[in-house]
Amino acid sequence: MFTTRRQVLAGLAAAGATTALSGYSFTSFAPMRINAQRLQSHIEGLSVFGRPAGGTFADGVSRVAYSDADVAGRKYVMAMMSAAGLEPRLDTAGNIFTSRPGTDPVAKPILFGSHIDSVANGGNFDGDLGSLAALEVLRTLNENKVATRHPLEAVIWQNEEGGLVGSSAVAGQALDLDRKYYGVPLAEGLRRIGGDPARLADARKSPGWFHCYLEMHIEQGGNLEKAGIPVGVVEGIVAIDDYDVEIRGFANHAGTTPMPERRNALLAAARLIEAVQQIVTREPGRQVGTVGKLEVHPNAVNVIPGLVKHSIELRDLSADKIAALGAQISAEAARIAEATGTTITLKKVRHNPPAMATSALQAHVEEASARLGLKTMRLPSGAGHDAQMMARLGPMAMIFVPSVAGVSHSPKELTSWTDCANGANVLLHTILAADKT
Amino acid sequence: MFTTRRQVLAGLAAAGATTALSGYSFTSFAPMRINAQRLQSHIEGLSVFGRPAGGTFADGVSRVAYSDADVAGRKYVMAMMSAAGLEPRLDTAGNIFTSRPGTDPVAKPILFGSHIDSVANGGNFDGDLGSLAALEVLRTLNENKVATRHPLEAVIWQNEEGGLVGSSAVAGQALDLDRKYYGVPLAEGLRRIGGDPARLADARKSPGWFHCYLEMHIEQGGNLEKAGIPVGVVEGIVAIDDYDVEIRGFANHAGTTPMPERRNALLAAARLIEAVQQIVTREPGRQVGTVGKLEVHPNAVNVIPGLVKHSIELRDLSADKIAALGAQISAEAARIAEATGTTITLKKVRHNPPAMATSALQAHVEEASARLGLKTMRLPSGAGHDAQMMARLGPMAMIFVPSVAGVSHSPKELTSWTDCANGANVLLHTILAADKT
Repeated sequence: MFTTRRQVLAGLAAAGATTALSGYSFTSFAPMRINAQRLQSHIEGLSVFGRPAGGTFADGVSRVAYSDADVAGRKYVMAMMSAAGLEPRLDTAGNIFTSRPGTDPVAKPILFGSHIDSVANGGNFDGDLGSLAALEVLRTLNENKVATRHPLEAVIWQNEEGGLVGSSAVAGQALDLDRKYYGVPLAEGLRRIGGDPARLADARKSPGWFHCYLEMHIEQGGNLEKAGIPVGVVEGIVAIDDYDVEIRGFANHAGTTPMPERRNALLAAARLIEAVQQIVTREPGRQVGTVGKLEVHPNAVNVIPGLVKHSIELRDLSADKIAALGAQISAEAARIAEATGTTITLKKVRHNPPAMATSALQAHVEEASARLGLKTMRLPSGAGHDAQMMARLGPMAMIFVPSVAGVSHSPKELTSWTDCANGANVLLHTILAADKT
Repeated sequence: MFTTRRQVLAGLAAAGATTALSGYSFTSFAPMRINAQRLQSHIEGLSVFGRPAGGTFADGVSRVAYSDADVAGRKYVMAMMSAAGLEPRLDTAGNIFTSRPGTDPVAKPILFGSHIDSVANGGNFDGDLGSLAALEVLRTLNENKVATRHPLEAVIWQNEEGGLVGSSAVAGQALDLDRKYYGVPLAEGLRRIGGDPARLADARKSPGWFHCYLEMHIEQGGNLEKAGIPVGVVEGIVAIDDYDVEIRGFANHAGTTPMPERRNALLAAARLIEAVQQIVTREPGRQVGTVGKLEVHPNAVNVIPGLVKHSIELRDLSADKIAALGAQISAEAARIAEATGTTITLKKVRHNPPAMATSALQAHVEEASARLGLKTMRLPSGAGHDAQMMARLGPMAMIFVPSVAGVSHSPKELTSWTDCANGANVLLHTILAADKT
């Protein structure tokens, strides 16, 4: 419908709009709302791409980045955008953008969106909701013929689940084109989704590029549901330290090697897993620690494990806190190694600094929610999001909606359609609030 | 050379033998000995089949049953047998036999041998030594023109490492032709090695088939080496209970799920692994318990493990003792399940009863060793052996030789050539001692 600033303004003039902010300015009117039914239809439509054969919506999706399902899902969304006059545009990193002009020719864009790739055996809300809500917000503004001062820019980041790949490219993070994601080298993945590995650096944007970045997302935890509150105001995205642990014992015959002579790498790993649990939980706070991935070698019933490799992941809003927890775990690992006759090495393979939401934007989310009659609570995001990359370039905030039973990264992931619509409406009104600044 | 009883007797007569037992009867003479250099050559020759590409003898072998390496190794051994006049014969289970007639037409055969299949990344002594020593004993008797009263029957069992498959067939154990060993269904495996799946039952023998069964093998533990004793007299082969454990928790996001809300299957597994260690070691004895195989699902850095499957294996000469240990572990598993919000099921998937060596045969091994000036010690076999299947059909004994550092099921598996020759000589003289009974 509206593809240039001139067209938007012309359209508004033709419709006899009296003020560009009419959708928001008169608080005595019922606030503008997105089309909840249409949002649901789009989420259901997208859910087909990556759905298990013969399954239903409740069976979730496997739409990992660069897969056929990802490519097909992106085409579906881009076709839907085109049909709604939201012309899609790809950057060289394969991120999908669509722009809506503002009335102020020098105002920076308000950027908002999410991602549509999933984990393997994931759900239909993680990323999809925020992406399709962003597009629904633009349709709603168009239908209501509301002009904004700032240009609006909706984005669907590529490969969030593999490690915030698309948003990292925009934030100027170094990416390895040979690194494989789900078995596909990044260069090949970029080609599959219409990016350009040779010109990946062109996707980079500078700090100050946007006015603010907003992302609406499911909580992926159970705090909002448990509190009975529909809107979460994210304080920040936690810092993450990932460690690779390698425990070397000695593989020997499980029948003939007396218990005292064993150098059992899996026994050492078991003790380290328990140590992570104890160290992370023995002080108050919301920090979490997880051993999620573990491999045993040679992994045979009748052989004492000679080698175990596993992950340790620590998360908290405070980077100092997880650094201290890591040091305690490392000290305990040394004691376990001595007691079990093994060698244990911990290697920090990732450090994500925390990404804090700005107070001003948090206040906008709270204003918008109040306007819609929705209660809010502040909470950290334990999960990583593309928003943390955008926090490197400018002010950022996130809006959370409840996840039933806190389940995520699972086909059982669920957010009620009412909560989905609430989240999209809060996004809409947060954008309008931010547009006043 | 000698292929029928008549030929043996004719050969002996032609050589002017005065007594069929001349190799053994005159204790003032130096005892007959096998050709140590030839035994070493055959072990080295066999080691080529399944050796890692570009490796040496020290790199061990992967000669798992039914693999190309196994088929090639069997051909090598059968060609070597034929060249020595020890005509190989296959039963329908693919076991390789060779017979040497005795002087007494009604005496039952003395059966002895081992296996030549290996575990993946195994060594050159486990099975190979006992198999090639058995053939060396026959060559030595032929060269020394020694007749025995009992027929002698050397055997190379197929697929010992996969679960005593060949000897189980002879002992009349039910075998599943569809079961896969190293990815190959048993029926196909049998065809590859010259067996006949359609007539597998023909391999079955009745109790009382043989006079006695003897097997010489590396200890696969460190007891003999530590004691500085060259010959182990096996008291029996331990009972084994194998359990499959399944721990179901709930897979959820590792960043967003608070620690108290987690149902972490890997934390439960860690506690159960520690419980196995504590329960098995808290009372005196030589019992062992091992968690050797473990798989985590979905096995991702950022997902709390929702499902862990692992093995528990318990071994001791006393079946009652390991049954009691299993009951204690099961009770502890119930407590761990409750504390971690998981469900834990233990399913006993294998029970091997203990197989005791007879006192008379143990005494023969000790006599033979004394005759050769070799010290002995009695010890259990913590490892399973084809001998335990033969113990179901008649009297059984095993001779152990030292394993350097107790290492087995590893390329580092090593037994000195002197210990190899000692073991073969003890086998030879144990056969001659048993032949007198």
